[in-house]
Amino acid sequence: MRVLVLGGDGYCGWPTALHLAACGYTVAIADSLARRDWDRELGIATLTPIRPLHERLEAWHALTGIPIACEIGDVTDYRFLSALMRRFRPDAIVHFAQQRSAPFSMIDLDHAKLTQVGNLVGTLNVLFAMKEHAPECHLVKLGTMGEYGTPNIDIEEGFIEIEHKGRRDVLPFPKQPGSFYHLSKVHDSHNIMFCCRVWGLRATDLNQGVVYGTVTKETASDLALINRLDYDEIFGTALNRFCVQAACGLPLTVYGRGGQTRGFLDIRDTVRCIELACANPPAAGEYRVFNQFTEQFSIAQLAALVAKVGEEAGLSVRVEHLPDPRVEAEEHYYNARHTRLLELGLQPHLLSEGLLRSILAIALRYRDRVDPATLRPQVDWRRAANPRRTPARRKADAARV
Amino acid sequence: MRVLVLGGDGYCGWPTALHLAACGYTVAIADSLARRDWDRELGIATLTPIRPLHERLEAWHALTGIPIACEIGDVTDYRFLSALMRRFRPDAIVHFAQQRSAPFSMIDLDHAKLTQVGNLVGTLNVLFAMKEHAPECHLVKLGTMGEYGTPNIDIEEGFIEIEHKGRRDVLPFPKQPGSFYHLSKVHDSHNIMFCCRVWGLRATDLNQGVVYGTVTKETASDLALINRLDYDEIFGTALNRFCVQAACGLPLTVYGRGGQTRGFLDIRDTVRCIELACANPPAAGEYRVFNQFTEQFSIAQLAALVAKVGEEAGLSVRVEHLPDPRVEAEEHYYNARHTRLLELGLQPHLLSEGLLRSILAIALRYRDRVDPATLRPQVDWRRAANPRRTPARRKADAARV
Repeated sequence: MRVLVLGGDGYCGWPTALHLAACGYTVAIADSLARRDWDRELGIATLTPIRPLHERLEAWHALTGIPIACEIGDVTDYRFLSALMRRFRPDAIVHFAQQRSAPFSMIDLDHAKLTQVGNLVGTLNVLFAMKEHAPECHLVKLGTMGEYGTPNIDIEEGFIEIEHKGRRDVLPFPKQPGSFYHLSKVHDSHNIMFCCRVWGLRATDLNQGVVYGTVTKETASDLALINRLDYDEIFGTALNRFCVQAACGLPLTVYGRGGQTRGFLDIRDTVRCIELACANPPAAGEYRVFNQFTEQFSIAQLAALVAKVGEEAGLSVRVEHLPDPRVEAEEHYYNARHTRLLELGLQPHLLSEGLLRSILAIALRYRDRVDPATLRPQVDWRRAANPRRTPARRKADAARV
Repeated sequence: MRVLVLGGDGYCGWPTALHLAACGYTVAIADSLARRDWDRELGIATLTPIRPLHERLEAWHALTGIPIACEIGDVTDYRFLSALMRRFRPDAIVHFAQQRSAPFSMIDLDHAKLTQVGNLVGTLNVLFAMKEHAPECHLVKLGTMGEYGTPNIDIEEGFIEIEHKGRRDVLPFPKQPGSFYHLSKVHDSHNIMFCCRVWGLRATDLNQGVVYGTVTKETASDLALINRLDYDEIFGTALNRFCVQAACGLPLTVYGRGGQTRGFLDIRDTVRCIELACANPPAAGEYRVFNQFTEQFSIAQLAALVAKVGEEAGLSVRVEHLPDPRVEAEEHYYNARHTRLLELGLQPHLLSEGLLRSILAIALRYRDRVDPATLRPQVDWRRAANPRRTPARRKADAARV
């Protein structure tokens, strides 16, 4: 089976491409390298010293003898995507090629537009390219659990049966996304569902939870294959950021009371879930949704876990509650179904102290690369224009605080 | 009260601007005139001979002594919109400035993108401009009943109380839009709801039904104020198109069996609904949805009505069932609530034979302007690329048929 991984240079895309290649799929990567540009724009960097994409791919080939094709280009460019589809003829497209940070999308109007227009146009291009060149192809699209928000009822997988005034229907689960980024994924979901209906395309929308960890079997096999690990306020997500803060002797920054509860998963399960989706395609015309996470935690629970493991490792760990820069419920009901990937055979790597120790070890190994000024939240949901986070600006802010 | 009408040169925008001005509001129009460009691109034209916008406004001023300010520019241009907001300082913004045709959005990828990106960016700009310049301003946004699709349960006004596994919540009504255009309105609805929540903006999302008629009290007061009437396959909607077909001795083109049921309203109610929304703004932070229509009809019912009235007027009227170019249920349950505007005082102009006779009379008066080749559906939902509808191409197609 031929799989095209769009966004194959990213945090989830890179280990997914390697995992699929290791599983025997014929893999091609397309990536615009936009994420590396955004890092430069914002003055942030991955904790781990990732190599340029072409070096990564050469190292992989040298190590395994398995080639992964690669094209540099942007999915928002239809001609690029269209030519690639004609040449590679994928059986499945795994679409990671999107701006994926909520704080990034909330910086200001330009970043909101970049996120929403870029993500929307990319997905529209993918759908039209499938219709034109590969109508049997399976789209595996990364969505987010954040599409649902935090309703006061159980969250189902994409659809819910509603009984109302004596009648019944199964309808798309209502969405309450919490940032321009999360909104962009809701827009995508509606567009994809529509194209499956009118054109008979087949798609799996993976509403992924918050991913933690950085190491998979394949990325661990050579230093040149190392995966990125974001810890900054823009791209860093809770658990990874907490481990870096603990390693550096900095307080774990919990936003508000920390009762915010979300679904989480180990990056080793991300790559396995994508493979399960590819291996079990939906029928023509079917739009299906899997909730892709393995466990629920509140942010305060995770901070406490990291603090415990950090203390046991001899670190002094403090948890600091900051005013929540986001507009979200700090305490709420949360119970989200996530059985469909288990039914396909997912065997979860549940969060363990061992895994936390391994993330901590990585954080300790690379802690000289940490810029503490990038850790504290500076993008405020309540403002429509947040100061641009240039390195100089950030340093000046940090000095002032 | 100062009201900015975005898209004030259009089918609904123009009579709304005049109605609000006649009601004593201080009105400014902004319009990019994009719609007039699209008419030229597609080789279509309004049945009624509308004047250039500046002539319309001069005539209105001469007739009533009431000035309406006007700026030519595009809401997708933030600098234009921002400057306009600073100068005009609106208390309410009525946002019609969008691509509003479902078939237009389904022509091909370019038209899908033009629709979705243009509509999305325009609304994002409006939201950011409100936050920056007029956080107390009330956004009156035109949505569509088509956002809901045709669920097998009653459609509520924007939100529905769901009981699920012993818990309850009031959640956004699930959306099942049926074209890239309808999808764009769903994207907008989610974006607006979010901005009300995080920034405390206030907005009314008017999920409008299919509008029929063309005459309002104000547009009837001088020939130079005449409103547009679209009858072509792209911008013409069912009832208006049927009247033009009847006037020209052409068959009424019903798509499929004609059991498609929708909400409809007289354009005189459109302008009154907008006024009611403006006069009764929501609280800060409130996002509310009104279903803006007055009656439900199936397409077959409307065709039968027009046939009856046409026959009585001495016309020979035939109804032709064409294969449905859209992907939609041709028979379905449909019952949509529409009480909130009635509660604010709307007194509907229900569809009458008298009104149908008056639309027929307009169609007869201008039937020399009708291009029959533009009436038959040529945009097929099942194709991702429909031939461009240039006048030459259309004539060639018509000759071949």
